[in-house]
Amino acid sequence: MTKTNAGNFFEDFTVGQVIEHATPRTITEGDRALYQSLYPSRFALPSSAEFARQVGLDVHPVEELVGFHIAFGKTVPDVSLNAVANLGYAECRFHRPLAPGDTLRTSSEVIGLKENSNGKTGVVYVRSTATNQRGEVAIDWCRWVMVHKRDADSPAPDPVVPDLRIVVPAEDLVVPAGLDFTDYDFVAAGEPHRFGDYEVGERIDHVDGVTLTDPEHVLATRLWQNTAKVHFNTQARPDGNRLIYGGHVISMARALSFNGLANAQLIAAINAGAHVGPAYADRTIYAWSEVLDKAETGAPGVGALRLRLVATRGRDESMTLRDEDGKYRDGVLLDLDYWALIPV
Amino acid sequence: MTKTNAGNFFEDFTVGQVIEHATPRTITEGDRALYQSLYPSRFALPSSAEFARQVGLDVHPVEELVGFHIAFGKTVPDVSLNAVANLGYAECRFHRPLAPGDTLRTSSEVIGLKENSNGKTGVVYVRSTATNQRGEVAIDWCRWVMVHKRDADSPAPDPVVPDLRIVVPAEDLVVPAGLDFTDYDFVAAGEPHRFGDYEVGERIDHVDGVTLTDPEHVLATRLWQNTAKVHFNTQARPDGNRLIYGGHVISMARALSFNGLANAQLIAAINAGAHVGPAYADRTIYAWSEVLDKAETGAPGVGALRLRLVATRGRDESMTLRDEDGKYRDGVLLDLDYWALIPV
Amino acid sequence: MTKTNAGNFFEDFTVGQVIEHATPRTITEGDRALYQSLYPSRFALPSSAEFARQVGLDVHPVEELVGFHIAFGKTVPDVSLNAVANLGYAECRFHRPLAPGDTLRTSSEVIGLKENSNGKTGVVYVRSTATNQRGEVAIDWCRWVMVHKRDADSPAPDPVVPDLRIVVPAEDLVVPAGLDFTDYDFVAAGEPHRFGDYEVGERIDHVDGVTLTDPEHVLATRLWQNTAKVHFNTQARPDGNRLIYGGHVISMARALSFNGLANAQLIAAINAGAHVGPAYADRTIYAWSEVLDKAETGAPGVGALRLRLVATRGRDESMTLRDEDGKYRDGVLLDLDYWALIPV
Repeated sequence: MTKTNAGNFFEDFTVGQVIEHATPRTITEGDRALYQSLYPSRFALPSSAEFARQVGLDVHPVEELVGFHIAFGKTVPDVSLNAVANLGYAECRFHRPLAPGDTLRTSSEVIGLKENSNGKTGVVYVRSTATNQRGEVAIDWCRWVMVHKRDADSPAPDPVVPDLRIVVPAEDLVVPAGLDFTDYDFVAAGEPHRFGDYEVGERIDHVDGVTLTDPEHVLATRLWQNTAKVHFNTQARPDGNRLIYGGHVISMARALSFNGLANAQLIAAINAGAHVGPAYADRTIYAWSEVLDKAETGAPGVGALRLRLVATRGRDESMTLRDEDGKYRDGVLLDLDYWALIPV
Repeated sequence: MTKTNAGNFFEDFTVGQVIEHATPRTITEGDRALYQSLYPSRFALPSSAEFARQVGLDVHPVEELVGFHIAFGKTVPDVSLNAVANLGYAECRFHRPLAPGDTLRTSSEVIGLKENSNGKTGVVYVRSTATNQRGEVAIDWCRWVMVHKRDADSPAPDPVVPDLRIVVPAEDLVVPAGLDFTDYDFVAAGEPHRFGDYEVGERIDHVDGVTLTDPEHVLATRLWQNTAKVHFNTQARPDGNRLIYGGHVISMARALSFNGLANAQLIAAINAGAHVGPAYADRTIYAWSEVLDKAETGAPGVGALRLRLVATRGRDESMTLRDEDGKYRDGVLLDLDYWALIPV
Repeated sequence: MTKTNAGNFFEDFTVGQVIEHATPRTITEGDRALYQSLYPSRFALPSSAEFARQVGLDVHPVEELVGFHIAFGKTVPDVSLNAVANLGYAECRFHRPLAPGDTLRTSSEVIGLKENSNGKTGVVYVRSTATNQRGEVAIDWCRWVMVHKRDADSPAPDPVVPDLRIVVPAEDLVVPAGLDFTDYDFVAAGEPHRFGDYEVGERIDHVDGVTLTDPEHVLATRLWQNTAKVHFNTQARPDGNRLIYGGHVISMARALSFNGLANAQLIAAINAGAHVGPAYADRTIYAWSEVLDKAETGAPGVGALRLRLVATRGRDESMTLRDEDGKYRDGVLLDLDYWALIPV
């Protein structure tokens, strides 16, 4: 009997099944420093404990994506080790800031299954929930992945496709307890642009580019204990390239978006996300954003912007997402739809 | 008079000599994060402060190898700066968990000397002891290295070869104070296999591979303040390659062994170790283990497995250590014999 | 209206202007670990909390250059994003040790402006001051950079060239409160050489070399939130090379200088600095030092050495700074003049 984990195949999932993922993980100040070293982030709140205190928080949170990557990484050995592709995200909410000393666990419920017509693969839908050491929900999200069947001849399950919301409604956004932007320090934050300065439909070219390298993305992906072989092992793919973890691209694009969105300090929710194209070392990544919506929140001085964050291979000053035929334009790597909190 | 350290040569060592190594070093949460970033470790105990608390520890230890690499690194400038080869390890014991805030110092006693028949090199045996800020022994170990003579004409010392034990007896293993595996959380740890599930002679192919890169191993080796030139300087060797620190291979193999040995949470001792072949960037490293022995410990719920951990260049599903003529098989990089603590 | 920062051009600066830089940054133990991982430093004081305590400090400082790089990085988006070259440093003093938990802000005053005769660029002189969370000065320094004009036709300002001191006088050096080297542990520090063992004019070849890589310097530079495009983006320069941040070379050379200057534990001031040549990946960097001056300080057991630290591409055992015609010798990358504190 083998003792090693070969991961789950499509047949191993049933709707309603709950998987408790392994490897609880304590966040440390080392994570903050490594994140800073890996991504060109300059958001004042995760950078400065003083800034965090001044906006009413009683801890110094790490970036929301630190928590997301850690929580997500735990699901990989059970959900996506045999995945063909990570198809999408929805309904991701950040319920409370995470700070050094917090320990995360993740569990996932299978909420949908649909075999593909080729009979060789199927789509698995899960809702994952990361909780802290007090059992409080920290992050939850849905994602769906295409997974290999172990045996093409095994029968297809009854298809169940969950009804996921296209966007997290603004009234469901969680603003961290205590957050108050009324005395917000725009000089420390780096830009004067506030909620009222952004218009729906506006696009922002974030200007800067970063050339990707293999050692950096494997350091990042390993930090999150994400074990997918394609990221680490040049023998895992015919072309010998290490496929870059999609979350590395998300974090890089989010950090690049500082230039133009410096006051979008916190991510409150991820509405949708698609890894449109693969990323590899030596490519130079750029980002642009589009303002999709705006909303008030009940918190003092805090507004919410719904943003589309697009990462591209090479700079696209035209900021064009799709070709005339509706397909993603060549060079688009990421299309991420999220809510950020910003001073009004 | 030069002020720089040229390292010791074979003639500089005498049996009984004690060397106090420089550079005390405080362990931090940054070391934990970097270790996680450098090696694909998913052992629950060093990953989660909650898990450590639940198994009875009053600190959140870093991996034992963090302590070992730091303690070992201090010996390099005095013992092995002019080493031709690191020949072996024995009698390494971990006397107490190390956690952020602990400061390590190392001293070494020369316990053996034997000139080689070529008259140009000799073997130096040392017993090294790392102590914490309270002067308590944290780790001790023996190693022997082949060192250049300064002058081939200098006379050979009387040969002294210490009588080192082939294996640390199970009754000499130190179980950390308070460790109690009776309420061990197998779900959090990631695998159900316990002490009773492993049989002597059993081999486990750890399946996963990691492709090595130069920036990663130099970041690791420098973190441990190991100064051996061959790791950092492409001009230090005729072939222009940076030789990868053997400890990097140990840590990589230990982390890979999670897949099949997830519950072997702590290393209690290293009985023997040989760096069989050199490792360089761009090679993909795999690991397999063999169960060599099993033993009870006095601690509640805690058993000990004696394991052989083998790292290979490329995967060897046959898990063959030696050829028919008794030589290590081509591609074997590391043969490490250690005791791990595991729930019964 | 664009929301992104295009940086300031020569016309945007006026003498007397004060710029409050963005992105306050809290130092953490993660910074200490990453610094250790990036540079081969073995100085006992930043390495060991016990050593710091034993020499009278009530915190465990990070290396002075950690503070310098962080403080400097904040000035880049406002001062040198459009810089042609970083021309020099002067009058840099370290006013107090910085430790995890300290938060730095930086502001700069424009103290000089001089258009170049080509009409396309000009030199901007700034005095920058980094303060901690209590508003106390932590580091201040002057630097001058050559910056592009936005429009070659805009009129030249009246030239103002500040009168900067060639060297910080010894009596102006700040010794950290409490520092006492009378019971200094030379064994822990790694070398016996004290103040009295160094002579003015003495040169020390630091022997060791480190081969540079791209991932390492971008991890470093990003950690300091330095945003200059040329360090990160292979598309930012015609040759496709990532130019290595000059501060990376300073830190590498300072760490290499341990071998021969192990007791030069703290940097008290930087008198002058020139990045003589560009550094790129795959080059191997070495360092040598020259003792320029010596001075007493009022602190118990603490002397000051004024040192020239020279980084070279490839080893220069002749330790020659300039050719016969007075130009920097080919291969010189850095010429740094600083004051270090050392036990008498």
